[in-house]
This record gives sequence, structure tokens and C-alpha cells, in this order.
Amino acid sequence: MRRGFVLVISGPSGAGKTSIARALVDSIAGLAFSVSATTRPPRPGEREGVDYLFCDRARFQEMIEHGELLEWASYSGNLYGTPRGPLEEILSQGRDIILDIETRGALNVRRALPESVLVFVVPPALVDLEQRIAARCAVSTDELSSRMAQARIELAAMRNYDYVVVNRSLDEAIGQIAAIITAERCRLTRQPALVSSWTEGGGAG
Amino acid sequence: MRRGFVLVISGPSGAGKTSIARALVDSIAGLAFSVSATTRPPRPGEREGVDYLFCDRARFQEMIEHGELLEWASYSGNLYGTPRGPLEEILSQGRDIILDIETRGALNVRRALPESVLVFVVPPALVDLEQRIAARCAVSTDELSSRMAQARIELAAMRNYDYVVVNRSLDEAIGQIAAIITAERCRLTRQPALVSSWTEGGGAG
Repeated sequence: MRRGFVLVISGPSGAGKTSIARALVDSIAGLAFSVSATTRPPRPGEREGVDYLFCDRARFQEMIEHGELLEWASYSGNLYGTPRGPLEEILSQGRDIILDIETRGALNVRRALPESVLVFVVPPALVDLEQRIAARCAVSTDELSSRMAQARIELAAMRNYDYVVVNRSLDEAIGQIAAIITAERCRLTRQPALVSSWTEGGGAG
Repeated sequence: MRRGFVLVISGPSGAGKTSIARALVDSIAGLAFSVSATTRPPRPGEREGVDYLFCDRARFQEMIEHGELLEWASYSGNLYGTPRGPLEEILSQGRDIILDIETRGALNVRRALPESVLVFVVPPALVDLEQRIAARCAVSTDELSSRMAQARIELAAMRNYDYVVVNRSLDEAIGQIAAIITAERCRLTRQPALVSSWTEGGGAG
């Protein structure tokens, strides 16, 4: 059976990546969501085990020490990590995993799993990004400029990604990332059994 | 403007690649067909300038000498080549090109244009391939085994390709290659202006 791959979606806060990731998991067969662990306190409406695995620093430190995390990074003073066990189990079942994480985490995933696919989502323009962040969080001017500064740091990491998707409309962006998943599933390097059956045995049938 | 790319479709005779290529050009905006030049005589129903640019050996030799061909190869005693001029014009207009050529030609295209995308199409099983070749050409037993031998040579080249698509149904195969085209258009390396606008200027807008 084909081993699954990890598709990482990153992008500046406000680019729409979380909505995209949720819609993809709902609509594509064989695609699962990986829930990150974090020491950040839950925001209103966030659910344990669905949005994040919320834990304290002691537990997070334990996960690091026991090798339970595929990767982890500190971000805005909180720790974020990707639990290894559930992820490996899904991949070995031939299902693919979507990870919605920031750019340093994404590059750590690529180091741990070089066959991962990295997709960067941007809004149509920087002005849209400001508006989305401001509208979503009702943040102060200071908080807005701090978030915009963080967005610029995220944007600078774009060059390490495989694909860039512009979120002009949610449907279009979802369609493009769905196409990326379909294409990556057709990649020769992800179908070793199929290739062997045709090039060694002289035919799959 | 984004420069277009060449998508090469290859596969053993009878895998359905020509039908797939025609359907893709009809359904995807910004995708053009490149017509190969050949010294092979036209088969019944084949049209000059649509299926092939038919020419004699003297004219083909002239095209080689004048550098008018991106690549060329000899195949079953006939010469086949890709005219460079029309192809470069289409790519510079930001349109992509689909090329339906055999495996040696495909690898020559990759050498000339390293950013090309190579897709290999196979039928569901070898037995299907035999049946399709036999049904399509009403060939003799000798001709059938010669074509099957040729098919095995083509299949051995599969490992040099980027993607493998199994033609279980025409619609499914067309959908998968359409997804590959969408994905490749989203590739970071094919969107240098977009990436620069976000990482250098701080935003496209």
C-alpha cells in the first residue's frame, strides 16, 4: 500500500488557511487532520482535541523528552508541536495528513519527513491581510502592528515552500489545494509498487 | 507574466494518451497543443497541421540543421520532432503546452527545458494494453508482438517521469492530469513575480 504524505499549510495569520484545511478534510477521501499540541491557553470556542491538544509546559516538556513530538517550536511565547504517534499511524494506513502550522514548524516537518508537501497561502494583497486580522480579532493598534510584523516574518519563509496559493476566494483556494493533493498522489515517487509492477514484472495485471 | 511550461504525456501505444491530451486542451484555459513534425506517412483520417506536421526526410533534415527543432528522435524507422518556434511563442505568452510524445523524445524535452513536467499514462493492466492495441489496429500476430515489445521499452522509461496516471476511466485520468496542471501552475518556482512581491515589497497590493 502507498504510504501517505504530510501536506503542510502555512501562511500569515488572516490568510484563511484554517478554513481551507477544515474544508479539505471534509471533502477529500483519505485525508486526515493532525491536531497540534500547544501550551497556549484555549481561545473562546476552541475545543480540546479538535483545535489543539492543550497542555501545560510540564507535559509538553515530557513529550519532547520522550520523543513523542515529530517537531516542536516556540512561537509568540508558547510551545507548539506535532504528536508523532497518531501521525505515523495515519501515514502507514496510506492516508494523507494536513497540518496547519507556522513556518518554522513547517520546515521542521520537512526535515523530519523530507517527502512532505509545503503549501503557502497568501491573501490577494497585504491590505486584505491587515483588514482580516483587524476584523477578526478586534485588536488594538499595537497588537495589530505586532501581528503584521509577525506576518512579515512568516512571509519571508515563503521561498522554502513547494506551492503558493492565493486565497482570492475560499472555493478557488480549496480547489487548488485539492488539485495539489491529487497531483502529489500521482507522483511517481509515491507509487513505488505500481512502478515496479510495470517496469519489472511487465504489467500490473 | 508567468512563463508557461511544457507538460509531456507519454505511455505505451494503446494507453489512451492521445484522447486524454485532446480532452485536456479542449477543457483547460491557457493550455495549447504542440503538433509534432514527422516523416511518417499520414494514417487514414490524420490531418496535416492537426495530428502532425507531415514532411519528407529532406525537409526534416533541414529543420534539424537550422535548429528549428527543440528535440527530435528516430522511432520505428521514422523521424519525429518538436518545432521550437511555435512552442517558445506560446510559453512566452504564459500559456502551457501539452506534448504527446514517446519516451526518448520526452527525455530530450526535459534536457532542453528542465522545468518541463513529465506524465506517464498506463492502462489498468498489461492484458488491457494488448486488447486495446489489437482492437484498434486489427494488426497481425507479428505486428502485435512487435508493438508489445515496443510497449515494454516505453514502460521501462517510466522511472524518469514525474507522475504516473492509471487510465482506469478516461474521465478519471483527465481529472488527474488536469489536477497536475493546476498544481504545477501553483508551484512556487513558476510564480517568481508573486513570490518577490510578497517577500521583498511586503505585499502584492
